[in-house]
Amino acid sequence: MKIGLVGLGKMGFNIGRNFLDHQNDVVAFDVNLEAVKELEQHGAKGAFSYKELVDSLETPRVIWIMIPHHVVDQALSEITPLLSEGDIVIEAGNSHYKESIRRYNELKESGIHFMDCGTSGGMEGARNGACYMIGGDEQAWAVVEPIFKHTSVEKGYLYTGKAGSGHYLKMIHNGIEYGMMAAIGEGFEVLEKSEFDFDYEQVARVWNNGSVIRSWLMELTENAFSKDARLDEIKGTMQSSGEGKWTVEEALNLQTATPVIAMSLLMRYRSLEQDTFTGKVVAALRNEFGGHAVEKK
Amino acid sequence: MKIGLVGLGKMGFNIGRNFLDHQNDVVAFDVNLEAVKELEQHGAKGAFSYKELVDSLETPRVIWIMIPHHVVDQALSEITPLLSEGDIVIEAGNSHYKESIRRYNELKESGIHFMDCGTSGGMEGARNGACYMIGGDEQAWAVVEPIFKHTSVEKGYLYTGKAGSGHYLKMIHNGIEYGMMAAIGEGFEVLEKSEFDFDYEQVARVWNNGSVIRSWLMELTENAFSKDARLDEIKGTMQSSGEGKWTVEEALNLQTATPVIAMSLLMRYRSLEQDTFTGKVVAALRNEFGGHAVEKK
Repeated sequence: MKIGLVGLGKMGFNIGRNFLDHQNDVVAFDVNLEAVKELEQHGAKGAFSYKELVDSLETPRVIWIMIPHHVVDQALSEITPLLSEGDIVIEAGNSHYKESIRRYNELKESGIHFMDCGTSGGMEGARNGACYMIGGDEQAWAVVEPIFKHTSVEKGYLYTGKAGSGHYLKMIHNGIEYGMMAAIGEGFEVLEKSEFDFDYEQVARVWNNGSVIRSWLMELTENAFSKDARLDEIKGTMQSSGEGKWTVEEALNLQTATPVIAMSLLMRYRSLEQDTFTGKVVAALRNEFGGHAVEKK
Repeated sequence: MKIGLVGLGKMGFNIGRNFLDHQNDVVAFDVNLEAVKELEQHGAKGAFSYKELVDSLETPRVIWIMIPHHVVDQALSEITPLLSEGDIVIEAGNSHYKESIRRYNELKESGIHFMDCGTSGGMEGARNGACYMIGGDEQAWAVVEPIFKHTSVEKGYLYTGKAGSGHYLKMIHNGIEYGMMAAIGEGFEVLEKSEFDFDYEQVARVWNNGSVIRSWLMELTENAFSKDARLDEIKGTMQSSGEGKWTVEEALNLQTATPVIAMSLLMRYRSLEQDTFTGKVVAALRNEFGGHAVEKK
């Protein structure tokens, strides 16, 4: 299949190579010309404008967009006017599902199929076999399914139904990921404070072989400890990129109790603070009612 | 190796068969005679008293105990007087690590090596390849390592050092397991309340192939949904058997923040209540200050 690929960042570039591995023709565009030229060396055709990209594709065109979610609307506003009825746009980044539903409806007015695709598995997955959750029109799905079939791991793609459902499922996936990661982190935190002297790489290794908690995350934990036995080289600040927060917001909207996922998100926020105002208030109150000492700055 | 096996419950019976598969001689004892006779049919020698069991072994004897943790002391009090200096007792159930340290010290007085072994992987693991975490004397470890090597999955055993460390690591493993399971549960809870109509078996399947949260637990999730598409046949009561609580108690003793694991435990307790007194108090207070309606019984 011929695919127009927009976005050659860490994920998009690897997906592009994955497409090329599976006998797809790739026409690639990115604002970073170096990335375009690099993918050309792997067999892609470079496009240096959206017009060139769109003109290089045959109808129904298939355009795969993999760019940060805050620039998706901008890109769509430039690409959509160049497209024709029946063309298919696959947005495979991490957009909020409600944005995807809005975009689906906007493109539908021009007869363009918008598909929302959640992509998991990291850069390694993008390169060698990703995990996809895809929402959008069934009619468009029939056209593009081979792309997903060939570039995912075996059984690693699912057509999830109506517009928004792909990104919705990816959002929840990430919420679960937050909770699982926090549980693993907390477990090692207790080990670190315990009276025993464990070799964490070996612990992660044994937990990853035959135990109930064996998982890809535990594999990654083993990798991390193999490089830095007690993670002395890094700080415990936990950034987040949106989907965990969206999961908790969705749970609140649905009035659904998800305390473990919510707590994993809140602890990420806590990790970004050197000190907390909560702490100051509580310390001050203990001092007020009980004369307990406060630590001065 | 010749192993005296005490306890032929779900785990012990399967471990016994696993021992037999790997050219070990097994002398088996259980209060349930039927189980002893059944394991005899697989090649074990049955023992119908602790004395018979101990007399059937050569020194240094190796005795593997796999019984509920509340009857370990009773069993040890009957077995220990029959043993000799240098014999090795492996307690492979789910005991609290502090009990294991106490037992280690008690048996040490008679020159008997006590090893605490955390066993993970469920019945299937016990049968075909378990995951073991083993604490105790290094000297005893050198004798018994082959048992673990042959009956675990590849890379699935770890000698964790001093007495108690094996059960400690298993305790933390289970704490992590609680958090991971709660995260998975909460994710599906949001899906169930969402505006979309997902096929949960397919969701678990795609999440288990190439995604960041792929794991044995997600495999089990897929299995569960394959048998009962929306789990209509079961109730959401979440029992627990101790290790999650012990992990949280240990975190409290170490003054360590483990809110995700703690919350996963507390939500299990909540699931066992039809109604809560917390709820009654909060509803009554809302009524007191704001005249908000309360639901009458």
